[in-house]
Amino acid sequence: MTTDSTLAATADAKLAISGGDNKLTKEQQLALINVNLAEVLNPEIIEKAIDEGRAPRIYWGTATTGRPHCGYLVPAIKIAQLLAAGCHVIVLLADIHAVLDNLKSTVELVGFRAKYYERTITALLKAVGVPTDKLEFVLGSSYQKSPDYIMDVYKLATLVSEHDAKKAGAEVVKQSDNAPLSGLLYPILQVLDEEYLKVDAQFGGVDQRKLFAAAKEWLPRLGYKERAHIMNPMVPGLQGSKMSSSDPDSKIDLLDAPDVVVKKIRKAEAAPKVTEGNGLISFIEYVLLPAAQLLGKEGFRVDRSRDNLEDLVYTDIAKIKADYENDVLTPQLVKPAISAAINDLLAPIQTAYQACPEWQEIATKAYPPEVKVKKEKKVKNKGTRYPGAAPAKPQEAAKEEATPEPATENA
Amino acid sequence: MTTDSTLAATADAKLAISGGDNKLTKEQQLALINVNLAEVLNPEIIEKAIDEGRAPRIYWGTATTGRPHCGYLVPAIKIAQLLAAGCHVIVLLADIHAVLDNLKSTVELVGFRAKYYERTITALLKAVGVPTDKLEFVLGSSYQKSPDYIMDVYKLATLVSEHDAKKAGAEVVKQSDNAPLSGLLYPILQVLDEEYLKVDAQFGGVDQRKLFAAAKEWLPRLGYKERAHIMNPMVPGLQGSKMSSSDPDSKIDLLDAPDVVVKKIRKAEAAPKVTEGNGLISFIEYVLLPAAQLLGKEGFRVDRSRDNLEDLVYTDIAKIKADYENDVLTPQLVKPAISAAINDLLAPIQTAYQACPEWQEIATKAYPPEVKVKKEKKVKNKGTRYPGAAPAKPQEAAKEEATPEPATENA
Repeated sequence: MTTDSTLAATADAKLAISGGDNKLTKEQQLALINVNLAEVLNPEIIEKAIDEGRAPRIYWGTATTGRPHCGYLVPAIKIAQLLAAGCHVIVLLADIHAVLDNLKSTVELVGFRAKYYERTITALLKAVGVPTDKLEFVLGSSYQKSPDYIMDVYKLATLVSEHDAKKAGAEVVKQSDNAPLSGLLYPILQVLDEEYLKVDAQFGGVDQRKLFAAAKEWLPRLGYKERAHIMNPMVPGLQGSKMSSSDPDSKIDLLDAPDVVVKKIRKAEAAPKVTEGNGLISFIEYVLLPAAQLLGKEGFRVDRSRDNLEDLVYTDIAKIKADYENDVLTPQLVKPAISAAINDLLAPIQTAYQACPEWQEIATKAYPPEVKVKKEKKVKNKGTRYPGAAPAKPQEAAKEEATPEPATENA
Repeated sequence: MTTDSTLAATADAKLAISGGDNKLTKEQQLALINVNLAEVLNPEIIEKAIDEGRAPRIYWGTATTGRPHCGYLVPAIKIAQLLAAGCHVIVLLADIHAVLDNLKSTVELVGFRAKYYERTITALLKAVGVPTDKLEFVLGSSYQKSPDYIMDVYKLATLVSEHDAKKAGAEVVKQSDNAPLSGLLYPILQVLDEEYLKVDAQFGGVDQRKLFAAAKEWLPRLGYKERAHIMNPMVPGLQGSKMSSSDPDSKIDLLDAPDVVVKKIRKAEAAPKVTEGNGLISFIEYVLLPAAQLLGKEGFRVDRSRDNLEDLVYTDIAKIKADYENDVLTPQLVKPAISAAINDLLAPIQTAYQACPEWQEIATKAYPPEVKVKKEKKVKNKGTRYPGAAPAKPQEAAKEEATPEPATENA
């Protein structure tokens, strides 16, 4: 999980991708799966799948609420690395959760949003050059209302105490007496999803740790096998957590025009010399650098022509952090470099969008103009898949990455 | 709800029954519906159904766990009165709850138990001479796993706070941090049952009062109409609550032979002169007297030939209580009278059972000998439909009927 392994792993991935199929060794696969993770529970389960010659099945869930923004790039890059490592990735489009998140949303609206998410996430993964043949989208509603599933919900609710359900959701579900009862039900559902999606592992932010630990305990109570869990660290918001919490319009939409991106990044919080809790630096670490590596690019380039200096090209986050702390890499230098890199990343997504009238129609139906202005603002703030989720608190494992403010753009 | 109205109402019912169809006036119907109840919420909803010329649809739920015993006669008599009043009564056989109550029970076993319950309850109602053409049995599993229902479970869990769910189940569900999460889910299900069974009212023990009050509030949140609620008082166990809690074998099975009934009643707790909390006196009040009245019998007869005295024949619980308190009616006199009356009541049920090989086969499959001896003991203790339910605490409304010990044989 060091930068060195990132480099090695992504270099291997590039080879594998350009080779047209997965020719990685087990060690290379595991390196790619594990790169940049905060924590892994039961890695042996993933290893076993590889040993059996199977593509490890890994799922990530997201409630199909507001428009996916740049914060989604953090988990998306991990998904890209999983695909590059030859995993079968299932994206659970939690449409039932989305309906429950805003009971005023119609099932139809949420259906369009699920389609929008599917298109966007696929385009995003294609944009970083990974194969998407092992990428699968599953609607929560396709099985979360089935008799077998609901019987298991009833059974698991009988086998799990109120206390344990609360503990499992402690970091991701609002905790108060007046919180909706559904908050205690969501952990039950999320745990069962592992069984019903027949996965080897679940991927999420480290804010899900307690829930993942519960999953390990709970599934065997129903006679189901326990799964592995892989966790991204909590990554501070790209534009600084204060700003992104108070002004959701500051979030960068994946379809924002290049000049809008430049403008939003210009406004981002970025204390000089401070890398801890710095959303810009984290975005380079968890998105831009791995994306460049997946794409086989030279690295993260910083234009210094304004000062008549040579460009800086980084392949190593440690070097970036050191230069930033020494003020060699100033906020004034790093911001345009980030805008440029984001625009490079978004360009193919936007090209695909412009070329597809169907996708445009879905977008209009999923986010009708009047709704977007008013109601979606709140929803867009949420980084976790669970409705009613409070902004995640800084985690033990995430402290390494320093999130003094609540991190909202996590996996 | 006085004894006088009982008499008048049941006399009317007898007329109606013997007349072959429901010729009761609205007032007579309401008197029969309300007799012996502890409380009614929103009686106008039931009245409205009658005004519209409809048979009020009223549901009562029971988890199909242990063998129905004489405690079931208390709600059964109310159901008989409802049928006599021309209501459409739906008995919800809560088979899913039964499975959850003992996860070792197979679905097949619980299926046989549901059939056994249906046969027994029907026979019991026929034994008190009421028409059963408006009696309907519905399996919980027939709709509690359907997509619409489960979506409503999810939605209602979103609209109800943890605090309110806990409050609603306070008297009927074990309340502790370590209690299973299902305890908070059951109130949600029971409230939705009213909508899915399309009833005008739900009937239950007064221990369900908080849940019924919640139902009134919660259903409109989903756009469903609120229902009426009718509540039996908490009635102390027939054989004294201490005995019935500690020794479930002391409970009188509906198929117990006459001599077994005599023996069990002989062992029953019965302090002389004390009517408050006296299970025997309560059983006369809530079962034997109304049953005699439904059947058009003279009343409750006490044989005093041993003392060379004339038989006493009661039609009024007030007179029975007065005589008992004055020791005119001693425990030694009342016990054989109760045994005789119970045996009279059970005789047609047992005759029907003996004449029906199919029912006997169901009984054997529902309660295989070895299982009965060991595991069912605990289940048989439970008086409420909900798995994991603690013995009900004495209620405000029930205090009238005096239950110094937890009442376990309630509706």
